[in-house]
Amino acid sequence: MNDLETAVRTVRFLSVDAVEQANSGHPGTPMALAGIGVELFTRVLRYAPERPDWPNRDRFVLSCGHASMLLYSLLHLAGYDVSLDDLKQFRQWGSKTPGHPEVGHTPGVETTTGPLGQGVGNAVGMALAGKLAAARLDGEGAPLIDYRVFVLCSDGDLMEGVASEAASLAGLWGLDNLIAIYDDNRITIDGSTELSFAEDVGKRFEAYGWSVQHVDGHDLDAVHAAIERTRGVVGRPSLIVARTHIGIGAPTKQDTAAAHGAPLGAAEVQGAKQAAGWPTEPTFFVPPEAKAPFARRVADNRAELAAWDARVSALTPERRAALDAVTTRSVPADLFATLRAALPGADATRSIASKLQQVAAARVPSLVGGSADLAESCKTTIAGSPHVARGAFAGRNLHFGIREHGMGAICNGLALSGFLPFASTFLIFSDYMRPSIRLAALMEQQVVYVFTHDSVLLGEDGPTHQPVEQIASLRLIPNLDVFRPADALECAAAWAHALLRRGGPTALVLTRQKVPELRREPDFDAERVLRGAYVLEDAADASVTLVATGSEVHVAVEAAAQLRASGQRVRVVSAPCLDAFERRPEAERRAVLGSAPVAALELGRTRGWEALVGDRGLVLGLDRFGASAPQSALAESFGFTPSAVAERVLSWLRGT
Amino acid sequence: MNDLETAVRTVRFLSVDAVEQANSGHPGTPMALAGIGVELFTRVLRYAPERPDWPNRDRFVLSCGHASMLLYSLLHLAGYDVSLDDLKQFRQWGSKTPGHPEVGHTPGVETTTGPLGQGVGNAVGMALAGKLAAARLDGEGAPLIDYRVFVLCSDGDLMEGVASEAASLAGLWGLDNLIAIYDDNRITIDGSTELSFAEDVGKRFEAYGWSVQHVDGHDLDAVHAAIERTRGVVGRPSLIVARTHIGIGAPTKQDTAAAHGAPLGAAEVQGAKQAAGWPTEPTFFVPPEAKAPFARRVADNRAELAAWDARVSALTPERRAALDAVTTRSVPADLFATLRAALPGADATRSIASKLQQVAAARVPSLVGGSADLAESCKTTIAGSPHVARGAFAGRNLHFGIREHGMGAICNGLALSGFLPFASTFLIFSDYMRPSIRLAALMEQQVVYVFTHDSVLLGEDGPTHQPVEQIASLRLIPNLDVFRPADALECAAAWAHALLRRGGPTALVLTRQKVPELRREPDFDAERVLRGAYVLEDAADASVTLVATGSEVHVAVEAAAQLRASGQRVRVVSAPCLDAFERRPEAERRAVLGSAPVAALELGRTRGWEALVGDRGLVLGLDRFGASAPQSALAESFGFTPSAVAERVLSWLRGT
Repeated sequence: MNDLETAVRTVRFLSVDAVEQANSGHPGTPMALAGIGVELFTRVLRYAPERPDWPNRDRFVLSCGHASMLLYSLLHLAGYDVSLDDLKQFRQWGSKTPGHPEVGHTPGVETTTGPLGQGVGNAVGMALAGKLAAARLDGEGAPLIDYRVFVLCSDGDLMEGVASEAASLAGLWGLDNLIAIYDDNRITIDGSTELSFAEDVGKRFEAYGWSVQHVDGHDLDAVHAAIERTRGVVGRPSLIVARTHIGIGAPTKQDTAAAHGAPLGAAEVQGAKQAAGWPTEPTFFVPPEAKAPFARRVADNRAELAAWDARVSALTPERRAALDAVTTRSVPADLFATLRAALPGADATRSIASKLQQVAAARVPSLVGGSADLAESCKTTIAGSPHVARGAFAGRNLHFGIREHGMGAICNGLALSGFLPFASTFLIFSDYMRPSIRLAALMEQQVVYVFTHDSVLLGEDGPTHQPVEQIASLRLIPNLDVFRPADALECAAAWAHALLRRGGPTALVLTRQKVPELRREPDFDAERVLRGAYVLEDAADASVTLVATGSEVHVAVEAAAQLRASGQRVRVVSAPCLDAFERRPEAERRAVLGSAPVAALELGRTRGWEALVGDRGLVLGLDRFGASAPQSALAESFGFTPSAVAERVLSWLRGT
Repeated sequence: MNDLETAVRTVRFLSVDAVEQANSGHPGTPMALAGIGVELFTRVLRYAPERPDWPNRDRFVLSCGHASMLLYSLLHLAGYDVSLDDLKQFRQWGSKTPGHPEVGHTPGVETTTGPLGQGVGNAVGMALAGKLAAARLDGEGAPLIDYRVFVLCSDGDLMEGVASEAASLAGLWGLDNLIAIYDDNRITIDGSTELSFAEDVGKRFEAYGWSVQHVDGHDLDAVHAAIERTRGVVGRPSLIVARTHIGIGAPTKQDTAAAHGAPLGAAEVQGAKQAAGWPTEPTFFVPPEAKAPFARRVADNRAELAAWDARVSALTPERRAALDAVTTRSVPADLFATLRAALPGADATRSIASKLQQVAAARVPSLVGGSADLAESCKTTIAGSPHVARGAFAGRNLHFGIREHGMGAICNGLALSGFLPFASTFLIFSDYMRPSIRLAALMEQQVVYVFTHDSVLLGEDGPTHQPVEQIASLRLIPNLDVFRPADALECAAAWAHALLRRGGPTALVLTRQKVPELRREPDFDAERVLRGAYVLEDAADASVTLVATGSEVHVAVEAAAQLRASGQRVRVVSAPCLDAFERRPEAERRAVLGSAPVAALELGRTRGWEALVGDRGLVLGLDRFGASAPQSALAESFGFTPSAVAERVLSWLRGT
């Protein structure tokens, strides 16, 4: 048994033992993919365990995240800061080895996977980031960024639509730095893949424009040769269909769904170890020679890292700045002031935000992104920069096509690779990409979502296109900030907030229709907008406070004028970002809301606002689906004209 | 000009004129697809305008719903109850011709489309329903159900992952009664499809197992021949790639994105009409001969309908019952009682619900469905019935593979075709199918979602698999009922509620982990559970009311016992369905909640509960992502053991 083969068995049985010890997990796939994993980490990947953030490292994505013990075992053997004790703590509270890989939690883990298909999309985003970076750093000598991205994926990954969307885009862009290895084990949880997956996967990927090979996934030399061949593939991503046997070596569970999602059990483990000539005791056994092939690879890679560091140290300041631009996501701290100096006049907030985005883009070189075929409607194209296309990666604009979910997963990959991505579509279609948004929030990645056409007031397109529950439901995702600006100043705050917020994604929620510019006192402190809610119009000893967001703020202002004519003393609060507001000290929040009865206005579900308005409060919203009609008819019918709002508030005040 | 050609031009210019009049809409695609539409409605489809619900009609799905004026024009010419005045009211408040087609709103519209890709999935579901029905009605003579399903789809439909998922399943099942016509116009909103859609669509569909043809979409005889050839395709769905020209005949806008989503403008309309030899005035011009080819088709179809009616009248009672079973979705009114007579003992609610589903399935023959590769975990397989497979449609169980979104869209198609579908996956993955769930709610279709693994207490799989915001965010979808039962009786109520609710979908939210059986008074009126919330344990002059759902109810009960030991008088309310509860009269709701301070317990986002507990109230939930650890460690760490809950409630009561 050579040391590679020893390493393969070590990975298999570390995985099996950890799942047994946790009494929870997925042993079959780590067993099946141990060979491919060892091949990658000992003869293919460029990495440095002591520098997991080396910008030019190859990326390894385990899209089938349930096989997490494969990754943890490999990281341990490769010398990452993942100890044998960490492996023994698999799936325990606070351990470095959670049930599915979590980026930021374990060194060497590139992205959080588990929800199937997402890792494929992330890998496409990482490969795209590599191409974008290379195009920006093009110059004399060896490239500073030329990493490759390897993604291991399962049947489930390739059944998910998000992976289809991302794979089609990878083919479109010709990402030849992307190599997907498909674990073709012919087993799903429900049984044989024949039950649900009869398609010709290779042919499908050829149709996307990929280069496709087929190999025996347990023949390491064949896998090695297939990966080597991908170096000769130019202008196309590669798919290697690797036939494997789930739970390989397990006496009765190999090639069955029983090997997938539960511990094998003592008898099966013993049988597998004996058949492999492996000691049944101790568990978590790591023979010294198992680490040797990893050590050889790391030594080679370390020399590459040293050379890379030396070249970076010798860069001219201009080249160094170009490198930083694609690795550090730097944003000037005074960005809000810059944006405030460029405020456009009254318009739809999508149009205002678009103009401000141009200003921001000039100061934030890592800002790249695009739209799911709604660039004209969402107005998110960065002016003066070309669109990215096959062989042309210098631009900053991406055409994602009508693929919101793929867009979301790809943006996560871009963010994980040093860019600051934006993604735009209609707010209603945020539903299509919700799992990717959630992962951005969970991974604490800075992604900016530009969601336009933000209420029924988009008009004639009707209920299929009119958001009702989307604002509220995005607010429910932990660590996602939702920013719904009302005018130009608030749009500037929205972009500043999104670009300066390092630890998570922000959704900008913008109107299709024009809204008036709000009037503020000359000495208004613009920083107050960033606090999420602020007093826009005040009244001594207010009798009522109107709180509104986005396009409902000017309605509140106009309604307030009518209410004043009826003798009310009205405070108007604009609340563009409830998430930011909730993070403010309670005293500040109370001061903003005041002590008068509070009525909230937002053209969406009322649920969620009750906490803010309290028992005495009123929430004017929309708790039904919309309808197809012109904007004015909808505002009338749903009671959202200023006079209807004033009337509803008055009658409520009379009732309280 | 023959009358077919006249009909084509009539459809084109009715569509153009309606968009001009509305000053809103999408003229280019109706213009391009007018020929294919006329071909279908005059020489292909089996339909009866006066009987739009004829069970054996062919289905026509316009997946590119933005081309709604194509459909409305065809329905008008074919004699459906869509008048010329209705066409003139395109996109106006309350009209029969909304911006996108809405089922139930306009006779002849089979499904609500607009969100791209969904119509393709619906069509797969309808074709599957046809196969399921035929298998159940197999017998002597001509088949009672042998309809075909035609779906017109755009680039955008085929870019969306949901369509990829559904198309793969159509290939798996070999649905040769499904014919998709792909409007290959090479234009998207952003411009040429080369920007974002370079794949070989035909080859992709061949990989899925489809039969693929290519035709000129403006050559009606070629289209006719291609459709005729699909009759010879056995065991495979058909894709006809029809090359078309968006905005055909518009002088400057043909073949440009400018023809897509906005009125053409007066000059362009005039130029197009003149080039086509069409009168520029009056608008909405319908020459009498335009209706002739439709009338011929309707006359032929009417004879088929009469023959079909005659055969149905002559059916034996058994055969008639079999037909009703696949067309009427009948559910016995006493189903809840039947389920109550079969209550299993304490277990995980997913396991209890599974046993009750078997009982329900025996009495509800139209109940069919399946899982996105989690049948074993969600436990939704109907016992004693085979799985559906290519050529074998007698069973009731479907393997959707790992394709939640395709599953959702297909279930909508099943529901629209007379079946009562269920779809199961983990609650976290409801996010993957959210757009389809929303459409079921909007279309008022009865679909049952079985979402298991409903909180962080699923344990070791960690935050990628642990729902936090999903229960609250599903509750935000209008017309979706969310039912989270706590024990066997509540599971029975959940299934009864879902199966007896005709006007919309219901999501059952179930635990992975075991929960104890709740104790109730012997004279407990079980019907109270259906009201959404009820007093489970009462106390005279209660000092606190605990409201909980699902697996938190027994925690509330145990915490209540501890609180009583501390001198509190505790009422416990179980609230399995807040949606149902909110529909109850206010007095009843107040009576259930009582006048003591209310604390709510639910292991998910707290936002949304404040309205129920009020300003004095307490919400114990989870406003962060979960973590990978065993269930008990999670309950401890998140403060959801009975003693932790009792302590938190006590300290809150002391503070109030």
